[in-house]
Amino acid sequence: MLFVAPGMWTHRHLLGIDALSATDIDTVLDHAGRWLELSRSAERKTTLLKGRTIINLFFEASTRTRTSFEIAGKRLGADVVNVSSSGSSVTKGETLLDTAKNLEAMRADAIVLRHSSSGAPGFVAGRVGCPVINAGDGAHEHPTQALLDALTIRAAKGRLEGLTVAICGDITHSRVARSNALLLGKKGAKVRFTGLRTMLPKEAETLGSSVTVVPRFEEAIEGADVVMMLRIQNERFAADAQKKGASPMSTTREYSRTFGLNAQRLARAKPDAIVMHPGPINRGVELDPSIADGQRSVILDQVEAGVAVRMAVLELLLAAPAA
Amino acid sequence: MLFVAPGMWTHRHLLGIDALSATDIDTVLDHAGRWLELSRSAERKTTLLKGRTIINLFFEASTRTRTSFEIAGKRLGADVVNVSSSGSSVTKGETLLDTAKNLEAMRADAIVLRHSSSGAPGFVAGRVGCPVINAGDGAHEHPTQALLDALTIRAAKGRLEGLTVAICGDITHSRVARSNALLLGKKGAKVRFTGLRTMLPKEAETLGSSVTVVPRFEEAIEGADVVMMLRIQNERFAADAQKKGASPMSTTREYSRTFGLNAQRLARAKPDAIVMHPGPINRGVELDPSIADGQRSVILDQVEAGVAVRMAVLELLLAAPAA
Amino acid sequence: MLFVAPGMWTHRHLLGIDALSATDIDTVLDHAGRWLELSRSAERKTTLLKGRTIINLFFEASTRTRTSFEIAGKRLGADVVNVSSSGSSVTKGETLLDTAKNLEAMRADAIVLRHSSSGAPGFVAGRVGCPVINAGDGAHEHPTQALLDALTIRAAKGRLEGLTVAICGDITHSRVARSNALLLGKKGAKVRFTGLRTMLPKEAETLGSSVTVVPRFEEAIEGADVVMMLRIQNERFAADAQKKGASPMSTTREYSRTFGLNAQRLARAKPDAIVMHPGPINRGVELDPSIADGQRSVILDQVEAGVAVRMAVLELLLAAPAA
Repeated sequence: MLFVAPGMWTHRHLLGIDALSATDIDTVLDHAGRWLELSRSAERKTTLLKGRTIINLFFEASTRTRTSFEIAGKRLGADVVNVSSSGSSVTKGETLLDTAKNLEAMRADAIVLRHSSSGAPGFVAGRVGCPVINAGDGAHEHPTQALLDALTIRAAKGRLEGLTVAICGDITHSRVARSNALLLGKKGAKVRFTGLRTMLPKEAETLGSSVTVVPRFEEAIEGADVVMMLRIQNERFAADAQKKGASPMSTTREYSRTFGLNAQRLARAKPDAIVMHPGPINRGVELDPSIADGQRSVILDQVEAGVAVRMAVLELLLAAPAA
Repeated sequence: MLFVAPGMWTHRHLLGIDALSATDIDTVLDHAGRWLELSRSAERKTTLLKGRTIINLFFEASTRTRTSFEIAGKRLGADVVNVSSSGSSVTKGETLLDTAKNLEAMRADAIVLRHSSSGAPGFVAGRVGCPVINAGDGAHEHPTQALLDALTIRAAKGRLEGLTVAICGDITHSRVARSNALLLGKKGAKVRFTGLRTMLPKEAETLGSSVTVVPRFEEAIEGADVVMMLRIQNERFAADAQKKGASPMSTTREYSRTFGLNAQRLARAKPDAIVMHPGPINRGVELDPSIADGQRSVILDQVEAGVAVRMAVLELLLAAPAA
Repeated sequence: MLFVAPGMWTHRHLLGIDALSATDIDTVLDHAGRWLELSRSAERKTTLLKGRTIINLFFEASTRTRTSFEIAGKRLGADVVNVSSSGSSVTKGETLLDTAKNLEAMRADAIVLRHSSSGAPGFVAGRVGCPVINAGDGAHEHPTQALLDALTIRAAKGRLEGLTVAICGDITHSRVARSNALLLGKKGAKVRFTGLRTMLPKEAETLGSSVTVVPRFEEAIEGADVVMMLRIQNERFAADAQKKGASPMSTTREYSRTFGLNAQRLARAKPDAIVMHPGPINRGVELDPSIADGQRSVILDQVEAGVAVRMAVLELLLAAPAA
């Protein structure tokens, strides 16, 4: 693996992209790149984190992220213990902090935390002695997702700097959009948010000058290097629609008609534009199946990059020499 | 372990007994026999699949099969990751194929798949790059169950050829019955299907000339070397009964009276006949407790053979030299 | 690790404190003390139980206990397989014994069993060939909890002999109270049970002469070395209250007012008294948050001791030389 010079990586936790510098991001991506290579070889398992205990503490269901972290931890030789909200003390009303303090007392070496409340990982991180990794918190951040997206883009395009990335979906509620916008801004890429007006932030500027809001989908895609489609949360969508009196736009079909990515629309992006999606995909809603499975889709590359990025994060937080 | 000559084992997946030759079956059973021996010794763990990631992807609940595969994988030194439908992307509506493709992208070395739809493992196998093992699909096949049953019979009787095996239960809906009939036919055993008329296939001949349908239970058992009782699915049974207007036969008690295996009925089989059941047992319904726990029951031998057979299958699919 | 002289540890199972001698308890605590030290070092993982399969068979949800056993087993190098009632054959109606016999047939080296029925682990232990560890059974025993509590008290006080331990809560239904009373009695400590009259046993004397029932909380705490608060099961509490016609005492607030531990009440105990709780805590009900997180709380020490005690128990049952 790469040598991390003392002081090069100074973070104890990974709570969000917000706290990372452009150099930090490069460090994660460089390390992840090595793990990606290794994961394609026969000898893909190491003993780097042998004897360490990593806890996957998931208060929201997620196959992809939980499995990705579990595989990442095991490939590094660690023991991974899954704790999910169903079947846990959570149902007995224990507080998040008590649960985390308990895991710390069991000498957990890292807590990977997914929670529906924005800021939950930060809250815990300030109060336990072991590294906390945010695996998605409310509408706040999902830093490993943004890092794996960046690794995927970098692998496809050779760089992040100067690229234009259109992100389409329920931006307001999306931690994926938020973390991506932060990361891409720090790395010198331009971000265009698009989606239903009710799903767009009023002040995208809070995410930096690199972000612009472009309500019209076609316009947002125009000349983009990357088109990132977000999953439409049908439930939330339906609820919103009902609240507003079931306008035509409020149906899934209507959404798909206006914001579904198909070949015709994708033609507006750069000829070599790539298509991304954090999954799970609603086929036929935000993404036409022919695009999801097409040559320009890097969706499965994202999944592969996910394990590598999580290995890199665990490595940097748990195995790097102290600063 | 046994040497697998190049080209001797040519299968990339284990989707069903249907695709296996009699020689293939012997290969699995021979390898499994070795693992069975090893599992009884103190040094029962190997490093054969060290660094490999096996995914247990279960869309139906099953302690026995999931646990058996998990233990098999771990005894071979692999990392085993459980993904079940509850708490997974499945609840978010992701397709089976997307889930499988994701696991493949995470560099899974094998996917063990249980699904309520017949053909699901075959569908996935044709579309992912890693071996797929069918852990039971709808009313189609349950190949590792048939293989562990065969290993158990072979251990008890020294052979499969020429034996008479009575299989009693809801044959129409049973993947266990189907896989067993296919395997036993290929290995030269005779199979008699028995059970309620509504539970018997109209054309058993599709499973080969070795299978006959014998509606009367006593007649089916007569002179049998093996009596295999299937679990009665009370739910399905009740539903069927209701549909038909609650005839006397439609109650569990009536079923037990006519098709429950007890000492008196077992006396019709060969004096050294063995009793099998894939579990979990409905004690007092299809099987009298005295028989389930009696000297002729090999039910727990089946469970033990299960781990050995699954180790053999994982070995052959993942560790055997390429043909 | 410590040397266990042949014949020093003669138990095949850990079903309850009831069966342990004072010397047995010391043996567990001494071994656990070593594991506690080791768990604080960087090299906290051993290969002592390499190749062994430990099954966590939980018929009641429990983050803490399941996770603690899982970490303990993995730190000893064993493979740990979780089997919980949801998603298991249990939902198909299989008997507990059949499930256990199946796990034995898969060559489980130990079954860690939690069950809502008192005596379930003992029932299973008499019928399977592998060690059974009681992880809590109904209102009967929770021996590893009492052992970890004893390790925690010993670490804080240097001894168990001669101490006064007040245990407050729903004593009648508490396996924690019962196992603690048994252990503390065997080790020469005095126990005072306190709580609502409806929650106190009528004949505490059955637990030995070391136990007295002291209904008034303040009196029970008076001069105590240890104050152990039990979790109030709000559900049970509410049900009881309703049955009795909703007296003022029957509300949670009332309970808290009379039996909640706060600074004022704790002042009645010895100046160096410690506060314990098996968790999960109902903050503000049985325990004031300032006490739970205060300097005299050893609640997280208990959690840490839990992993060490479970390692010691697994070691003694699985790795000690045969007597």
